[in-house]
Amino acid sequence: MSKPAIGFVGLGAMGFGMATHLVSEGYPVYSYDVFPASVQRFQTAGGIPASSLRESAEGKLFYVCMVASAPQAQAVLFGDEGIVQYLPHNATLLLCSTVPASYSRSVADELASRGRTDIHFVDAPVSGGAKRAADGTLSIMAGGPDSSLQIARDLLQEMSAPSKLYLVPGGVGAGSNMKMVHQVLAAIHILGASEAMGLAAQLGLDAQSTADRIKSSEAWTWMHENRFPRMVEEDWNPGASALTIILKDAGIITTSARQAHFPTPLCATAEQVYISAVLQGYGSKDDSAMVRQYYPHPLKDVTPSSAKEDPEAATQLVLNLMQSVNLVAAAEAIAFARSLGVDMAQFFELVSDAAGGSKVFVTRGLEMIEGKIGAQAPTGTQTLDEVVSQLEKVVQKARDLHCPVHLGNAALSVLLIAKGKGYGGEGSTSVIQVYP
Amino acid sequence: MSKPAIGFVGLGAMGFGMATHLVSEGYPVYSYDVFPASVQRFQTAGGIPASSLRESAEGKLFYVCMVASAPQAQAVLFGDEGIVQYLPHNATLLLCSTVPASYSRSVADELASRGRTDIHFVDAPVSGGAKRAADGTLSIMAGGPDSSLQIARDLLQEMSAPSKLYLVPGGVGAGSNMKMVHQVLAAIHILGASEAMGLAAQLGLDAQSTADRIKSSEAWTWMHENRFPRMVEEDWNPGASALTIILKDAGIITTSARQAHFPTPLCATAEQVYISAVLQGYGSKDDSAMVRQYYPHPLKDVTPSSAKEDPEAATQLVLNLMQSVNLVAAAEAIAFARSLGVDMAQFFELVSDAAGGSKVFVTRGLEMIEGKIGAQAPTGTQTLDEVVSQLEKVVQKARDLHCPVHLGNAALSVLLIAKGKGYGGEGSTSVIQVYP
Repeated sequence: MSKPAIGFVGLGAMGFGMATHLVSEGYPVYSYDVFPASVQRFQTAGGIPASSLRESAEGKLFYVCMVASAPQAQAVLFGDEGIVQYLPHNATLLLCSTVPASYSRSVADELASRGRTDIHFVDAPVSGGAKRAADGTLSIMAGGPDSSLQIARDLLQEMSAPSKLYLVPGGVGAGSNMKMVHQVLAAIHILGASEAMGLAAQLGLDAQSTADRIKSSEAWTWMHENRFPRMVEEDWNPGASALTIILKDAGIITTSARQAHFPTPLCATAEQVYISAVLQGYGSKDDSAMVRQYYPHPLKDVTPSSAKEDPEAATQLVLNLMQSVNLVAAAEAIAFARSLGVDMAQFFELVSDAAGGSKVFVTRGLEMIEGKIGAQAPTGTQTLDEVVSQLEKVVQKARDLHCPVHLGNAALSVLLIAKGKGYGGEGSTSVIQVYP
Repeated sequence: MSKPAIGFVGLGAMGFGMATHLVSEGYPVYSYDVFPASVQRFQTAGGIPASSLRESAEGKLFYVCMVASAPQAQAVLFGDEGIVQYLPHNATLLLCSTVPASYSRSVADELASRGRTDIHFVDAPVSGGAKRAADGTLSIMAGGPDSSLQIARDLLQEMSAPSKLYLVPGGVGAGSNMKMVHQVLAAIHILGASEAMGLAAQLGLDAQSTADRIKSSEAWTWMHENRFPRMVEEDWNPGASALTIILKDAGIITTSARQAHFPTPLCATAEQVYISAVLQGYGSKDDSAMVRQYYPHPLKDVTPSSAKEDPEAATQLVLNLMQSVNLVAAAEAIAFARSLGVDMAQFFELVSDAAGGSKVFVTRGLEMIEGKIGAQAPTGTQTLDEVVSQLEKVVQKARDLHCPVHLGNAALSVLLIAKGKGYGGEGSTSVIQVYP
């Protein structure tokens, strides 16, 4: 059976991988990008170049929009040369960009107001990075009417791993909401990876062996494992994931949270540090360059001989920092997701196997989701007081070294507020009670 | 009546002013400093140079220690050449450095263990800046046994303004605790001044006219008024108050707060930004250089023509930012002071007329101290919801401009946690209920 023609716009790091993967699966893919060089590179990779948005859309029953932001999507869809006017009757339109759910819903509204309810519109943000995009093994969170999801399903499945296509209940916008609450963890863990390695460097610890310990410990995050090689090689000009991308996602989160008057202290702290780094000129660099906010030299320049104390005790400080931050990050993401009415079982399944994943999320996070807080906390797990005590030592040590620990500090404030409310003797999952 | 000889150590920005003021009041002041050039300058100003700690102490019935930190004080007092061994019987020893209360108490203990209970020891940290030091109009917070305070009183009064000598009940350490809780406000307001002016610049507002508006509004802080001239003139090499000084004070606060497991989210956020600036090389510069963390160019380069929106509305955003931050700062300082058993009436009186003062502190702060929160809030004052709504607009606008607002963001998190606990409809003073 011959594959349908696909229209495509947005050949950035992610989009290029997605589009070329579809080409390799036998689809005729007609792609446009504002940068002619990207279109040329796409043609070299076997794709069909489109010289205009119109050319990319006319006659295409399937269309994928993978531009970088909602304003770009708005121009692509509804601008003077917007594709909606050129899409054929009953076309399926996938918006794979990460955008606010409110924007996704506004697209559905605008399609209706333009008399294009025939278009099957699905908001389908993706996660997993450029490599998975090229492999067709992304995580995809798709929201839309059931009929649209059924029509879009095969194409979505081509771009995602077998178990990583999430059809999110709730209609258009539900995919974007799911992506957003996933990105709460991503935005915190990306900075957390740099914060941990920066503190390790200030402690005189060897970067590689510290990273190995993190990987095999309860402190593991997907982001740390993914970012560490670029961080240590300083492969960040431009690197695989520009700082401005996660800053944009953080902005979607904090803007949506403010609209709901929901506190996201950790994610908002991360955003402030990202904004500060942009002000220093790091916007176009890979987000693993955030390590410079914590340690002013290459991690490779740290020699164990400069260790200022017992390396094992110092390593434990780094692990404790990450575990504490990951705990509060899990609480923040879960509380925010719950407040938005997100399907929590699906949220847990998705995060556990995606870029927002952490060991702490699959243990303490699951307990939070299952309501195992307070007296229900499993015996043997740490109390909130114990986490507070560990994190206080980390923050104090960092302070003595004049090393910033923005996230560790913000997490400690949240934990101390929880302790002040009387949850200190309870399981550490009680920290979620600080959130509405 | 002839004035007694005074031994003195520590001729930094503050100490030099204090020592030369005592000289001008007719005291024979024998002063030592690790920098011979400072001693020379002191001699030129009419003081008596001491070539060693021993020379500064021998035969002096009154001794003032004004070094920069507890470790320096420890060396001066009890090191190999420490002054305690040289002070005569029944000498009065004033420790005017800003140190943790626990350190002040350890000095009293060490005097006892060395058999020098004859020494009248008073912990007497000061506030007010170099100019007031030189004028003898500092605020001084003195703690010690009543008998010691009586003996020290005349000398303390020489260095302080008539109404600004606070004899703090509670013995040795009480003065340091009072200084510490005052510095919660100082540490927040110093950064707040830069944050407000940085945002103003990003909004395209003229610095001088914005500062004038702040001065005449409810957003006024002593620190903004004091720092603005140096900020706009970039008079910060070295400037009057090095970043490392307020960083040290912030460290005393957050370290003491952690020991008491007390959350100080705003002050701890300020500390993280100070640490980050030190990492960027700003340690020796005046703390008004923190404006560079928010705006990368001189404030004077902002021209009204670059204004991106209605200047009046933009100015209101800046005022709202400061008022919101000052509100949470007041709550944080008051809650922390209360937890330490500080005399709240004295704390209010002191702060209202010292470097930690703000318009918000003398209005909303007084209401918090008097328990006028919740249903007791005066009619006509803003609700917590109203403050949240105003601050959300500021943070969103700053976000859109890619301008950091570290304090505004942290204050919003605290306010949103309070709102989440159900205090939204109450008076804004209810924010203090987030704190233990």
